[in-house]
Amino acid sequence: MIARLYLEDLHLGQTFTTGSVTVTTEAIKAFARDYDPQPFHLDEEAARDSLFGGLAASGWHTAALSMRLLVDGLPFAGGLIGVGGETTWPRPTRPGDTLTVHIEVLAITPSKSRPDRGMVRTRNETRNQHGEPVQISNLGIVAWSRPAA
Amino acid sequence: MIARLYLEDLHLGQTFTTGSVTVTTEAIKAFARDYDPQPFHLDEEAARDSLFGGLAASGWHTAALSMRLLVDGLPFAGGLIGVGGETTWPRPTRPGDTLTVHIEVLAITPSKSRPDRGMVRTRNETRNQHGEPVQISNLGIVAWSRPAA
Repeated sequence: MIARLYLEDLHLGQTFTTGSVTVTTEAIKAFARDYDPQPFHLDEEAARDSLFGGLAASGWHTAALSMRLLVDGLPFAGGLIGVGGETTWPRPTRPGDTLTVHIEVLAITPSKSRPDRGMVRTRNETRNQHGEPVQISNLGIVAWSRPAA
Repeated sequence: MIARLYLEDLHLGQTFTTGSVTVTTEAIKAFARDYDPQPFHLDEEAARDSLFGGLAASGWHTAALSMRLLVDGLPFAGGLIGVGGETTWPRPTRPGDTLTVHIEVLAITPSKSRPDRGMVRTRNETRNQHGEPVQISNLGIVAWSRPAA
């Protein structure tokens, strides 16, 4: 069991690695049916003739799976509340890919007005089983100060 | 039926409005169970005591729903292939909220190396039924040139 992390437990350059998840063809199609119903996310044959050259997960599916890995693997006290960030998808997630998120703390900014919290800027790289990034995200997360004993 | 849009059909400042989707409590919890299983997305009582002050959709759920609205409402020829962008969540999506995405074309950049395509930068504001933004996203989308007749 990993200890819950408070603002005071974080430092610049600190890294974390989440667990992993393997993405099935069925999961790719199920997410796409609900949220991104385009041929290259739903149908192998149509995907072959697309820019992707084969079935590809929606980038938002990769983003949602990355969030799941972060929730399970980055134990901030009080949970992970993101305020937003920049996300790019250098290559698609493919059926059978196993994804892991590698996290680095880029900035820690205590709140000026609220001493109980701060903002932590993280770089989150979601990599497939070949170590290739499928998503690079720069996410702002709320972190809480350790309560007085 | 709206015509499919090619690179040549787009201009700076052009706006589009998607259809709408109403978000149920059950949908918020179902998404959270799969992708963002934190108390404030899963349980009304726990959410009341959180930063959100009540049940709130995962930001990634708002993002996925926004993509669905874009896929159905922004008829780019060849579909919507995003390369990434910056996303912020100024306020959470709540149970019963009805979301609509308002799109503005910010930049159009024809590819230097590939005359068949270009990159379109859009600002996408997802608003609730009160007109308040729940997500502001600046997304790069591939657009295709109109094929020679």
